[in-house]
Amino acid sequence: MTVYLVGAGPGDPGLITARGLERLRSCEVVVYDRLVSPALVDEAPREAVRIAHEPHTQEEINDLLVRYGRAGSVVVRLKGGDPFVFGRGGEEALALAEAAIPFRIVPGITAGIGGLAYAGIPVTHRDINSAVTFVTGHSSGGAVPNGIDWEAIARGSPVIVLYMGLRQLGAIAARLIAAGRRADEPVAIVSKATTPAQRVLVTSLAKAAAAAAEAGIEGPTIIAVGEVVRLRAALDWIGEGA
Amino acid sequence: MTVYLVGAGPGDPGLITARGLERLRSCEVVVYDRLVSPALVDEAPREAVRIAHEPHTQEEINDLLVRYGRAGSVVVRLKGGDPFVFGRGGEEALALAEAAIPFRIVPGITAGIGGLAYAGIPVTHRDINSAVTFVTGHSSGGAVPNGIDWEAIARGSPVIVLYMGLRQLGAIAARLIAAGRRADEPVAIVSKATTPAQRVLVTSLAKAAAAAAEAGIEGPTIIAVGEVVRLRAALDWIGEGA
Repeated sequence: MTVYLVGAGPGDPGLITARGLERLRSCEVVVYDRLVSPALVDEAPREAVRIAHEPHTQEEINDLLVRYGRAGSVVVRLKGGDPFVFGRGGEEALALAEAAIPFRIVPGITAGIGGLAYAGIPVTHRDINSAVTFVTGHSSGGAVPNGIDWEAIARGSPVIVLYMGLRQLGAIAARLIAAGRRADEPVAIVSKATTPAQRVLVTSLAKAAAAAAEAGIEGPTIIAVGEVVRLRAALDWIGEGA
Repeated sequence: MTVYLVGAGPGDPGLITARGLERLRSCEVVVYDRLVSPALVDEAPREAVRIAHEPHTQEEINDLLVRYGRAGSVVVRLKGGDPFVFGRGGEEALALAEAAIPFRIVPGITAGIGGLAYAGIPVTHRDINSAVTFVTGHSSGGAVPNGIDWEAIARGSPVIVLYMGLRQLGAIAARLIAAGRRADEPVAIVSKATTPAQRVLVTSLAKAAAAAAEAGIEGPTIIAVGEVVRLRAALDWIGEGA
């Protein structure tokens, strides 16, 4: 009777942890996100109950985890990326804790690190940055997220990594430029990172939104802003489309 | 003839990726960091050449990777955490790229995410933060790192995660408080995260440095500043010392 919140990583099924794969292979119930590779879901035992997140609200998912946990099942909640990075894993863990269901966290590779690595972009590099900020561009209202001080982030973080930032990219870029970031600062937009459909568009802060639209970039994306993007010229170890 | 830069994760050997473990088990040469679990190094084939980073300078390590790569060996460079998060993996990759040695990146779980998860602390949580900043407290001169705008980070990042920040914790906390962070803001200091020797000290920004000294906290540490630390009260799934 334990619920494991397992990070599946950004897409490539090889990026789940050894521990996560072990738990998945011995679970009785797997509840999985839409973006998790089907190859990973297939690692669950044939007889395991399989539940897709997609038709359910977050509250329903929390309830399902509590219900199966209380019934004594070994449950794997397989989440894209890392459970605790913009993934609502904290809410699921709180629901389990409140219901006194034992749970464990198995961290995962987050797209902001591993997805950029597959584009040949280190999120930190000596002589470029001693700080990196991860920020979500997503907000339920569709506007630029409230409560984010883009001016302070622009000043404090030589490298900014945007999760779910494609729709708001133009507005966010404008704020960063208004706060003093260079219009020609390099930006990398990585679509479907670490999957066979990965695409990488290198552009500039001023042109990013238009370039993404013109190139027909689709979500999910991870977007890097900063001089580390230039390292891709030397470090692109995959090559486009490989 | 490929050099794999593999993230070993923060300590728990189960947190290496499935891909990383596979590469490690089929390598001919493994070059490993001091903080990597011996249990992981033991996963390399018995006949593999084993090279510890410790007696070598970074330049020597770069040269070793190039030399073994050029000789046609399958090399795993096993690095603590993730190769591209404050890990000098970018420098190693650049050395390989310049020497035209094929290389691949296998990302790893970084302590700033996975280490805090083992302390029951999500780095992001709904209604608490839409941004998190990772920053290194390390600098070769021993002073508070230059080039870091602590005032901007204090304003822009509701959650700040310090790597290698123990020695400079007093100075950094003072700067954050001077920039407007509350003196009683919660801080978690996680020592030897995800290992059997993990220790977690929850304190406040004003008291953090003195509390760490009094408790005899040893490095390596990962330090979280922000309201997410309070979630540990509900989400500590390991328990001290377990």
